[in-house]
Amino acid sequence: MMNSEWNLVEALRHARHDWMNRLQLIKGNMDLGRMDRAGQIIEEIVAEAQNESKLSNLRVPKFAELMLTYNWQTHFIKIEFEVLQAEEPEIDDDRVYQWFTEFFSIMENSVKPYEENNLVVTIKICQNDARFELDFNGIIIDRENLQNWLELQDSTITLHTLDNEGFLISLSLNT
Amino acid sequence: MMNSEWNLVEALRHARHDWMNRLQLIKGNMDLGRMDRAGQIIEEIVAEAQNESKLSNLRVPKFAELMLTYNWQTHFIKIEFEVLQAEEPEIDDDRVYQWFTEFFSIMENSVKPYEENNLVVTIKICQNDARFELDFNGIIIDRENLQNWLELQDSTITLHTLDNEGFLISLSLNT
Repeated sequence: MMNSEWNLVEALRHARHDWMNRLQLIKGNMDLGRMDRAGQIIEEIVAEAQNESKLSNLRVPKFAELMLTYNWQTHFIKIEFEVLQAEEPEIDDDRVYQWFTEFFSIMENSVKPYEENNLVVTIKICQNDARFELDFNGIIIDRENLQNWLELQDSTITLHTLDNEGFLISLSLNT
Repeated sequence: MMNSEWNLVEALRHARHDWMNRLQLIKGNMDLGRMDRAGQIIEEIVAEAQNESKLSNLRVPKFAELMLTYNWQTHFIKIEFEVLQAEEPEIDDDRVYQWFTEFFSIMENSVKPYEENNLVVTIKICQNDARFELDFNGIIIDRENLQNWLELQDSTITLHTLDNEGFLISLSLNT
């Protein structure tokens, strides 16, 4: 769960800040007469918001909160996510939340601080079958640490590629 | 405090919904070539967000949460607020929160349901001196109930006007 000192007012402040930045981008393009670009940005924002709505509808409040608020705290990795599919979700929130909390913690300790470290999480959920793709681009400085942890995950994950600049992993958490 | 079944994901969902509506308004005007109107709307949104930021900075998390989330729940009155001034706030969050919770509850039971019942709360805080103006426009059907409660507030409030269609009250909560 998010740090306990966090509260709702704090979270809304961060959300507001993000929205104000987006608005500024729209306004900036409008002021320069770039209406097509302003329209494009609005469409991108709508797509992002729809994604967040989908995640919020998966009935996994702890996991959703983790993903929605992660970038608002001081971290060395930045997270994006996409919900591809979600049919009749019946997922064990605690299990998914625990797995990702541990994974993010390992990641934070394996990457080079203050670099561009981007993790894209793709989410496909069908009833109690939860599948994820973890696509990382950045700089890994402690590959052994990461690799050891991944090996412990056994058949839960399939490691497609891994080098010092990223990885692609499939994860399946049948719950 | 906000109903306990509410959580952060829920609150962010409401905030997102509000922002999407605003975005739609901007986009709609852009599509019609009304760039001046679109720009105006952006300025209004920025002003509203700055107001919310000011409230969030008053170090009264319970009161701020009450005001920021009130309209997201099913209520007969709609609340707007404006923070005029806030210097070195040292306010008793619990006292302000309690007062407004009780006041809102009395209001909900005094107005005509499903009508336009708008309350504008203006906030001026200087150290431990918290002043508010409560400007209501709507339909009051149980004026006795409201009036009795207001009389109990004694010297805390000054009643400027009150009739069946609204009131103007000054409130001072030295804490």
